[in-house]
Amino acid sequence: MAEKQTRISAEPGRLDIVIEREVDAPREMVFRAYTEPELYAQWIGPRGLSTEIDHFDARNGGSWRLIQKDSEGNKYAFHGVYHEVVPNERIIGTFEFEGLPEAGHVCLERTVFEELPNGRTKMVSTSVYLTGKERDEMLQSGMDEGVKEGYERLDELMDRLKVQQRPAK
Amino acid sequence: MAEKQTRISAEPGRLDIVIEREVDAPREMVFRAYTEPELYAQWIGPRGLSTEIDHFDARNGGSWRLIQKDSEGNKYAFHGVYHEVVPNERIIGTFEFEGLPEAGHVCLERTVFEELPNGRTKMVSTSVYLTGKERDEMLQSGMDEGVKEGYERLDELMDRLKVQQRPAK
Repeated sequence: MAEKQTRISAEPGRLDIVIEREVDAPREMVFRAYTEPELYAQWIGPRGLSTEIDHFDARNGGSWRLIQKDSEGNKYAFHGVYHEVVPNERIIGTFEFEGLPEAGHVCLERTVFEELPNGRTKMVSTSVYLTGKERDEMLQSGMDEGVKEGYERLDELMDRLKVQQRPAK
Repeated sequence: MAEKQTRISAEPGRLDIVIEREVDAPREMVFRAYTEPELYAQWIGPRGLSTEIDHFDARNGGSWRLIQKDSEGNKYAFHGVYHEVVPNERIIGTFEFEGLPEAGHVCLERTVFEELPNGRTKMVSTSVYLTGKERDEMLQSGMDEGVKEGYERLDELMDRLKVQQRPAK
């Protein structure tokens, strides 16, 4: 069975979180899942939350905002800007959770897409925070479960897209 | 004499650079110098370079790009996006020098403007890099001289603006 473990590295005393994950789908297909809003909404975030896109413009200098809702109607909103979007290679941008007591706690994320043999792809996503306190609060928020479940939903989305792309008999 | 020393902190093994500077001008005037392109071009960067604004849209989700030229005609270009601009309080955005051998080496900057007594202002600017190598290369580029000279030019700009704002006798 192919490796689908999500590795989250966050050493004590540092400002960064590094997340590595492999997906059993070609890089072009994975990149589409990160940059097309109707696909992104199908996988980002934990199971049990639905995602509504407010706006989503995955290009150099673009911006995005999305709202996630649970079954009880609670809403969690996030937004950011894209510094750079290089097709099939990398996405660099900012990320902020709007539900914190005060605004301005922002991180920078760089996700690199690596082509692997046998039509597989590895994503390496590095996030850096402006202070250790901000990074540690993100880690303590339970983000790891949301990240892992998100990638599982990405696996499922890739399976659906592969079925759609399969030539008819 | 008022304190005008620029303090640059960059501890070994970390991802951040923290720069602190006080200016002898009120916060609203300092904030204008960061967000109005015709003012920003008068002070940012080292002495001896002139700054041409390509575009500069200091608002949430906006972006900017500028080109600095030396007397020999060498050009140095920089660009970024604004995540958040809160009038007179803080600016959060990205920064990239276009002259590196490869693109994608981006940092996140948060500048906070603190009101001090006697019409003075303190700026605390925190930059974080995605890897220690990227931060250390920025430190080794001689950025400290450019930063210090930029703040001296900001002092001079503040003096010019204060003269303009002085009521006629």
